[in-house]
Amino acid sequence: MYLPHQKMSQTNTPIPKWERVVQWDGHKVKLVDQRLLPHEFKILDYSSHHELAKAITMMVTRGACAIGAAGALGMVLAARASTTTDPTVFIDEMKKAKATMDAARPTAVNLSWATSLEYRLAESMLANNSPIQDIKEEMVLEALQIMEDDVRINKQIGAHGAALIKHGTNILHHCNTGRLASIDYGTALGVIYVAHEQGKNIHVWVDETRPRLQGATLTAFELMRSGVPFHLIPDSAAGMLMSQGKVDYVVYGADRVAANGDVVNKIGTYAISVCGNENNIPVYACVPTSTIDLQVKDGKHIEIEERSASEVLEVGGVLVAPKDCPVFNPAFDMTPSKYITAIITEEGVCYPPFEQSLREAKERGEKKIAQRNASVLAKL
Amino acid sequence: MYLPHQKMSQTNTPIPKWERVVQWDGHKVKLVDQRLLPHEFKILDYSSHHELAKAITMMVTRGACAIGAAGALGMVLAARASTTTDPTVFIDEMKKAKATMDAARPTAVNLSWATSLEYRLAESMLANNSPIQDIKEEMVLEALQIMEDDVRINKQIGAHGAALIKHGTNILHHCNTGRLASIDYGTALGVIYVAHEQGKNIHVWVDETRPRLQGATLTAFELMRSGVPFHLIPDSAAGMLMSQGKVDYVVYGADRVAANGDVVNKIGTYAISVCGNENNIPVYACVPTSTIDLQVKDGKHIEIEERSASEVLEVGGVLVAPKDCPVFNPAFDMTPSKYITAIITEEGVCYPPFEQSLREAKERGEKKIAQRNASVLAKL
Repeated sequence: MYLPHQKMSQTNTPIPKWERVVQWDGHKVKLVDQRLLPHEFKILDYSSHHELAKAITMMVTRGACAIGAAGALGMVLAARASTTTDPTVFIDEMKKAKATMDAARPTAVNLSWATSLEYRLAESMLANNSPIQDIKEEMVLEALQIMEDDVRINKQIGAHGAALIKHGTNILHHCNTGRLASIDYGTALGVIYVAHEQGKNIHVWVDETRPRLQGATLTAFELMRSGVPFHLIPDSAAGMLMSQGKVDYVVYGADRVAANGDVVNKIGTYAISVCGNENNIPVYACVPTSTIDLQVKDGKHIEIEERSASEVLEVGGVLVAPKDCPVFNPAFDMTPSKYITAIITEEGVCYPPFEQSLREAKERGEKKIAQRNASVLAKL
Repeated sequence: MYLPHQKMSQTNTPIPKWERVVQWDGHKVKLVDQRLLPHEFKILDYSSHHELAKAITMMVTRGACAIGAAGALGMVLAARASTTTDPTVFIDEMKKAKATMDAARPTAVNLSWATSLEYRLAESMLANNSPIQDIKEEMVLEALQIMEDDVRINKQIGAHGAALIKHGTNILHHCNTGRLASIDYGTALGVIYVAHEQGKNIHVWVDETRPRLQGATLTAFELMRSGVPFHLIPDSAAGMLMSQGKVDYVVYGADRVAANGDVVNKIGTYAISVCGNENNIPVYACVPTSTIDLQVKDGKHIEIEERSASEVLEVGGVLVAPKDCPVFNPAFDMTPSKYITAIITEEGVCYPPFEQSLREAKERGEKKIAQRNASVLAKL
């Protein structure tokens, strides 16, 4: 194992607790403003779903799970703001609110997944002739349940993934997939946190993840606070470390997983997956089953969001290229499943053939959600 | 071909001339301060080889060819500063000056190559009992010749490379290898400039090249000034573009090429070479034969320079990661020759088996230098 410049932690200590990035205080949604990290830890309040949607677009919060929770809470804000007593007006308002929230980050499937849960809850309760006030209360409970489920699911992803990690190994991580991208633990970083808590003496190579530098600003911040040994690297150094035998596992999250196991994730995922494969290093995508989209046959059918040139041209407000320089800035790339060793979910580790393993995991995950939803409706 | 957001140039115009990055004004060495680019074009003067060596370390100038020229001019400054009339004292001073210059960037083989030419010239002339004053004058001519040879060599690299580039294609380029890295034209960018001058209607994807952003600050600056159509991309977007069929060639320079064709170049070269190979895209390393080091059997034997953490932690003086964040910042990586389609030199295009083709090209290149050196000494 490579031990650069730093003594490894030998302890088996739970990672310290901290304030969650998405919170509901009973009236307002609270988001940790991730744009200010790692220099400032500031919490912003939202009482309108329009403002909350804007915050998601502006990346005040990001990461599949956190965006999902924020989306559900956006539906709660819209429901609470409604003054109508007419069921058809109310459901129409909820439909519009869902469209507003979903449009905030079109590539993030967790967003529309969470807003759909809220919308369908409202729809079912209306069909049951429930009073609108009751629906509003149940929608709050649903959002809270989504958040608690998220923590449970992430801990399960972490446990399944950590079981694959050997003692004293080096793990390459891309983007941010941790406590700042979820409600707690996270997906790929959840695997790292659980392995660390198990005293596996791991060391993490943190891709800085240009252009938005989520690795440098968020993952480095998280790992320092959590006491996990790591080094920050330029994204372009990952390949070299792999070729030198200094990476034992490649782990990352995903914004969307197609039915065949193709993964859409932060730009740069493709290259580290190809290099991982080339060097016989296991490549693990770590996702909740909610991120698996069985409706999408393969990755070629997933829209890739192109983002503003300023993300590449400016770093912390400093212009790093000539003024008016032409830029191409795709937010994500698509990694064909042939480069992925396994997809780690809360329902277990999915191996090829992914069509089968992902469908089974997805069905188990959905069954649990359906059971939960049924129990919500049964209470009414 | 991919034509994103920009009309392609259809003209067959020579690239506009500009001030060279390394100049000799008869008394002083002048360097364009590349640390200020792309925002300011400022020229600094050096009249001491110690200061010049420091400037090379500080990356006022960079790139194999420019560093070589600066190294030769450093020897000139040291010779001119000498007041001795004793040949053994003089050659000892030259030896020390060579050590000072060579230590400025230990990985750059062109530096010690150029200082060796100057040192051996002095040694040969002393053996011929030439007066020290004559040696000093010949050393100036030698440095100027190195610079003119460099322009000729780069134009030849450009011509050999451009012959491989088809009309209407997309070329991926890493780091800076152009007019700012050489005396004129450059190596990999020389290929691009010549192809552009030939009216081949090319478009360039410019890797920003973290951590020092030579692509964003230098290559983008050069290509804008030179009218070559391009887009700047985060390094991590290169793989995706390759997988989508939007890259037809991968071109880069090299800091050192081993006898077997292994290439040491700016960090990130390895990953784009692996991804190029994976997608059946030709990968071309473009170098003067002076960069080929037949003494080094393969890339595993080349020392990789590790640079300061601040290059990763700070961008334009702005801290982009937590304070005291641990960083690993290798300046270069090593690309095994199996990922390289051809190595383009001034002596022609070298294909595998590289042991043979590189040795032949190197021998032809060295023969020309030997002939030139012989003609210098014959004049005495």
